Amino acid sequence: MIIGKMGKGKVKEREDRNLLKRVAKKVNISEGERGVEDILRVIYRNQPISTKRIAQLCKLPLPIVAKVRTILERERILKRENGAVLTEKGLEFVENVLKFKFKGSLRCPLCEGRGIVLNEFFKEILEKVKPWFRKRPEVNTLLDQSYATPETSVYRAALMCERGDLEGKRIIFIGDDDLTSLPVALTQFPEEVYVVDIDERLLNLIKSFSEKEGVKIRIVKHDLRKEMPEELKNNFDVFSTDPPYTIDGLKLFLSRGVECLGEEGVAYLSYSHKPIDEWLKVQEEITKMNFVISELIPNFNYYEGSEIIGNTTFIARLIGKRLKVNIGDTEKIYTGLVKPTVRYYKCLKCGKIHKLLNERIESLRCECGSKKFRMIKREKLS
Amino acid sequence: MIIGKMGKGKVKEREDRNLLKRVAKKVNISEGERGVEDILRVIYRNQPISTKRIAQLCKLPLPIVAKVRTILERERILKRENGAVLTEKGLEFVENVLKFKFKGSLRCPLCEGRGIVLNEFFKEILEKVKPWFRKRPEVNTLLDQSYATPETSVYRAALMCERGDLEGKRIIFIGDDDLTSLPVALTQFPEEVYVVDIDERLLNLIKSFSEKEGVKIRIVKHDLRKEMPEELKNNFDVFSTDPPYTIDGLKLFLSRGVECLGEEGVAYLSYSHKPIDEWLKVQEEITKMNFVISELIPNFNYYEGSEIIGNTTFIARLIGKRLKVNIGDTEKIYTGLVKPTVRYYKCLKCGKIHKLLNERIESLRCECGSKKFRMIKREKLS
Repeated sequence: MIIGKMGKGKVKEREDRNLLKRVAKKVNISEGERGVEDILRVIYRNQPISTKRIAQLCKLPLPIVAKVRTILERERILKRENGAVLTEKGLEFVENVLKFKFKGSLRCPLCEGRGIVLNEFFKEILEKVKPWFRKRPEVNTLLDQSYATPETSVYRAALMCERGDLEGKRIIFIGDDDLTSLPVALTQFPEEVYVVDIDERLLNLIKSFSEKEGVKIRIVKHDLRKEMPEELKNNFDVFSTDPPYTIDGLKLFLSRGVECLGEEGVAYLSYSHKPIDEWLKVQEEITKMNFVISELIPNFNYYEGSEIIGNTTFIARLIGKRLKVNIGDTEKIYTGLVKPTVRYYKCLKCGKIHKLLNERIESLRCECGSKKFRMIKREKLS
Repeated sequence: MIIGKMGKGKVKEREDRNLLKRVAKKVNISEGERGVEDILRVIYRNQPISTKRIAQLCKLPLPIVAKVRTILERERILKRENGAVLTEKGLEFVENVLKFKFKGSLRCPLCEGRGIVLNEFFKEILEKVKPWFRKRPEVNTLLDQSYATPETSVYRAALMCERGDLEGKRIIFIGDDDLTSLPVALTQFPEEVYVVDIDERLLNLIKSFSEKEGVKIRIVKHDLRKEMPEELKNNFDVFSTDPPYTIDGLKLFLSRGVECLGEEGVAYLSYSHKPIDEWLKVQEEITKMNFVISELIPNFNYYEGSEIIGNTTFIARLIGKRLKVNIGDTEKIYTGLVKPTVRYYKCLKCGKIHKLLNERIESLRCECGSKKFRMIKREKLS
């Protein structure tokens, strides 16, 4: 028995929404119409707003947002006024067709949606680690390094503390270019803090931190493509990782973590907000290893630079029982190897064009002496 | 190359922690030692604390927490002083063996860990729905009904709003004993709000609400064990459900929701914090349907009564693409049918013992006229 009549058919297929479909198709955005709608909603609620901030709030890659923005400007839906702003036509479209009405934000202003806050103790830790974060070596993008902000790393430590995963625990970091081991060690709560990384520059920085600050962090130089050293296996309660954002990278780093935990334990996984198809694959692989996602907080982590991922990733607390290693292709773990990309950069001083293939822009120097460039083109090699 | 020597072996297997293992075994707690450790940590951080609050914070069933508490009292680890409190021996154990040190709480005091807050608009909605929540009929525990607090339902509506799942959307509630449709409809943001439920008493309450408050909620009486009516199929953008906390209940309710979404859409799932083995199964089934868990917030929902689940459940926002229906046994969807339990209640007036099998304590009346009982025993039938 149905009381009342049905409406005019589901919203998502209405003809007046064709603009969304058209734009989604042009940009080839994996999130489809919903992705374009999300961008418009974020602009409606926050205008004027920068492309970078749209990307963060929508959890979309910056180049995708930039493309959508350009097309919507051409369609006279958006204009530029200290950021993206809806035109009169745009406002008419989002309010009458998409039915947008809500302009505020309900995100908690105190914790910014993270659900936890820093008390005095953790605020002091933040101040203590900040100068060390500034000493980090240049990122090596070939290793998919990208540096989390000091706030992010301290919030991670606070989350681990709140969930009971620091006190009395043996903790290992499977890669630690984010230096999360620093605030974790400063709490003095864990039994042991280990860091495994391939980058000696980072390990040396961590070593000199632990000496200067009088905290114990044990460092291990190791290429994670190889099995864990025997002494580290089955020897930890908790691990934390922010792996390369490829399926094989994720599987490899989680599996090395599982080797360290043994049968059971807790994992903190920081990972990029992926398009549904890819994230579904990730969920499958995590499930195969016998990890449950006990908690998943979007936009928990922020990074310096790394615009491709919109500067923000989620954190998930995984709990494992009867854990299984699940390793795929150990060679193609870095994004540059999975999707080789040629990037063209123009020198901002002399105008010379430089072509980069799996090389780091950070180490590029023009013959004219300049270090400033603008990317003018990207091409994916198949 | 390992710098520094390894510690004395992993914490979780140390002999001095045997107490945890012993208690976990006695209570047969699926979370094992970690469960007992969680209970002790929550007491250490919040003493004196009630059994109910321990259950909420640990996300464990109340009867389990009560049993652990009793055994730990016998072991002279805990005592009673306006709630659970650690004895001197207990303090010594948790500080020297488990190494507890942190006494505060980092949970955001403003949003209580939910990540979102109510603005004036939603606070007004809360006040408006409160009297309607008081009019709810007696829960029918045979249908696994348990009533969320009005705050919980309004927070759900706020979360849906913040994530962009209200404005202009067609929304359906797959069961709505929590009356979440009320605050959702009061926003006036959605295109359509539908409620499907088997309980006519609830549907009538929703109907009179929508008439009195002048908002449109369409109600459909339907037994979810049967396929969705054709008119509802492939006709919605978003659904919300708080299904029976059994695997088959979850699969059935989600599948009916999927019938309503068609190929793709968003789902809000409220579900009990399950032991790892069971939650792993849930994660597998969700993944099979092609839903990704884009967000999972523990302790988001609170209920009136329903102590078995510790009064609190999580909410997850699922995004689906190429969705698949995934229905198991449609008969054994309610917990009482999966694990038939005999409960014995003692009348608090005359002392008579009543035996209940799949009957509701809410409708029990003693021959002496009293309606007050204390449960004295539970037995699971195999």
